[in-house]
Amino acid sequence: MGEAIRIIGIDPGLRRTGWGIVESLGNSLRFVASGTVRSDDKAALAVRLCQLHDGLADVLHRLMPQEAAVEQTFVNKDATATLKLGQARGIAMLVPARAGLVVAEYAPNAVKKAVIGVGHGDKKQIHMMVKVLLPKAAFDTDDAADALAIAICHAHHRQSIAFRMAVA
Amino acid sequence: MGEAIRIIGIDPGLRRTGWGIVESLGNSLRFVASGTVRSDDKAALAVRLCQLHDGLADVLHRLMPQEAAVEQTFVNKDATATLKLGQARGIAMLVPARAGLVVAEYAPNAVKKAVIGVGHGDKKQIHMMVKVLLPKAAFDTDDAADALAIAICHAHHRQSIAFRMAVA
Repeated sequence: MGEAIRIIGIDPGLRRTGWGIVESLGNSLRFVASGTVRSDDKAALAVRLCQLHDGLADVLHRLMPQEAAVEQTFVNKDATATLKLGQARGIAMLVPARAGLVVAEYAPNAVKKAVIGVGHGDKKQIHMMVKVLLPKAAFDTDDAADALAIAICHAHHRQSIAFRMAVA
Repeated sequence: MGEAIRIIGIDPGLRRTGWGIVESLGNSLRFVASGTVRSDDKAALAVRLCQLHDGLADVLHRLMPQEAAVEQTFVNKDATATLKLGQARGIAMLVPARAGLVVAEYAPNAVKKAVIGVGHGDKKQIHMMVKVLLPKAAFDTDDAADALAIAICHAHHRQSIAFRMAVA
């Protein structure tokens, strides 16, 4: 079956960026750690982006994930909110990419499907299933729980890709 | 009058990010350099963000600007375009901030007002006035010309702040 792969899922946001790390080996999945990187909303935007950068870079340095996954978030609110999210998301993708990790992207319904079995469902259902799939999981915020869901989604997808390659 | 201040203006975009550097001393303004950092639109998003990061970091390393300015762009197109721009803009603000530069933001009409005297006007007018204000300016793309306009805007604003502080 080979070595366990350590995956980081990231749920980007300018105020709070959640992260969650799991280890995947065959069909088994293990919780490693999760947390939330915050930026100071009284600081200038460039400073806040640095805070997100430094917080994520620290997590990668400490926990050494080998692959990364980020949700393809779409905001249906105003353009200002979308631009803010985009800026945070740019940092969330840059940090693992600069560390040499491949960064996968998943649509929100793909994340839901991987975690709760269907492409729709509310936050509560997702967080409940994260606890079922990763019994030892602890998360300090909804963003960290969402990040774990993204990591689980990537673990499933990379697993099925490996399976398809094995039977081909 | 003190020392000349070297300013970088950045016009962010995922495909092309323009940059322009000027030196400001008292009322005089001097063109230093300008250019365009491109990302490969066939590459994955995270890779493209790395390309923008590395290109801008290289410019900062070579030309050592002391202050940075980025336009507060708003896209009125779809959310996908706004998210893309936001991601590029996140990198455009992160790189100078991580290098220790203060990063100022200016609304598009502030940039127009600084360059052409009024808060409205088309790209052609702006580019013409960039050539008038910086006779030696050369730019390879519209994005580089826009970046010079942003740098000029910051030079004017920091100058008037210094003047207000001197008479206070």
